[in-house]
Amino acid sequence: MTVYGVLVFDDAEDLDVVGPWQVFTTSARLRGDVDRAVLVAERDGPVRFAKGLRVLADHTLDDHPALDVVTVPGGLGARTAQLENPVVTGWIARRAESAGWVHSVCTGALLLHAAGVVQGRRVATHWASEDRLEALGGVTVVRDARYVVDGTVLTSQGVSAGIDSALWLVGRLHGRDHARAVRRALQYDPAPPYMADEPGA
Amino acid sequence: MTVYGVLVFDDAEDLDVVGPWQVFTTSARLRGDVDRAVLVAERDGPVRFAKGLRVLADHTLDDHPALDVVTVPGGLGARTAQLENPVVTGWIARRAESAGWVHSVCTGALLLHAAGVVQGRRVATHWASEDRLEALGGVTVVRDARYVVDGTVLTSQGVSAGIDSALWLVGRLHGRDHARAVRRALQYDPAPPYMADEPGA
Repeated sequence: MTVYGVLVFDDAEDLDVVGPWQVFTTSARLRGDVDRAVLVAERDGPVRFAKGLRVLADHTLDDHPALDVVTVPGGLGARTAQLENPVVTGWIARRAESAGWVHSVCTGALLLHAAGVVQGRRVATHWASEDRLEALGGVTVVRDARYVVDGTVLTSQGVSAGIDSALWLVGRLHGRDHARAVRRALQYDPAPPYMADEPGA
Repeated sequence: MTVYGVLVFDDAEDLDVVGPWQVFTTSARLRGDVDRAVLVAERDGPVRFAKGLRVLADHTLDDHPALDVVTVPGGLGARTAQLENPVVTGWIARRAESAGWVHSVCTGALLLHAAGVVQGRRVATHWASEDRLEALGGVTVVRDARYVVDGTVLTSQGVSAGIDSALWLVGRLHGRDHARAVRRALQYDPAPPYMADEPGA
């Protein structure tokens, strides 16, 4: 049984949360719901994400089930208010000691750094924050990989890379064939438009 | 100014909603917030998505701003309860007459069919519902494209294809260069893992 805990806070980036959430919950569904995923927030009440989505968390930081995976999203909140919030960074630090995996998306890597979780490690973050993360010191920022695995710390590039890294993680935990089944359930055969500059109709 | 309305209902698929939402809101942000996106639900109160995310909508079906784009997600609710809900299918039918674009993700195409919006059109849906949609009659199901544009009706394949199709749409509305800027902001350079069966470490 795997319990995934996704941290949420005001101004977390909307897709940073819901990309991994969709992967973890679809994985749980395909495994007969022996696994589950929960959203964890500092306090009760709606959380408002960076792009305006208002979400209700399932648990608070001081009352949640034991977590095998902790996912930390990025977004404006991760780059500002939560960096100065010892309740959140302290929670991440303690979870890093007890959870099997710590996973960040986008600028969630800045929060992992503030929590002391990535010292000496190779990490990925959103391209616009790579210089900032490198300047904080003590980490090697990998700029040419969608996600980076260092021990049991999994960090990913911006926003949409949470999907790729979460899918990698369910494969690491439950097998490559299972991850492929999740990918097929999500029909995750991405095809971004406008990758060539061919003229429109 | 473009107003995007994303329909939400119980058991809508979580990423079907939040994938396009992230694209539309990021597009709006990059355009100086002259555009906006809103979530629209049948009634007030939390909506619980198919994989458990609980979300608060911004407006109800009978009280929302004029919409230039209407996005209809799929998921269990789109395949069951909402198909039998004339309040929702009637709303989609009326919006199809007044909105510039009607956009579906995954099995949202079944709701468009129930609303009479896709008669005689080419459409895409999740691979597991292609036979069902085809059997309903009056449509040509395109099985080998991530998303299908027919007039001002844009339908997409399963779950993650909402991102691809929403990105196409903001490019159609606001230019290819703008869409590329949105893609870069989202760092949407997808790289699904396990696409080759190479042995793990």
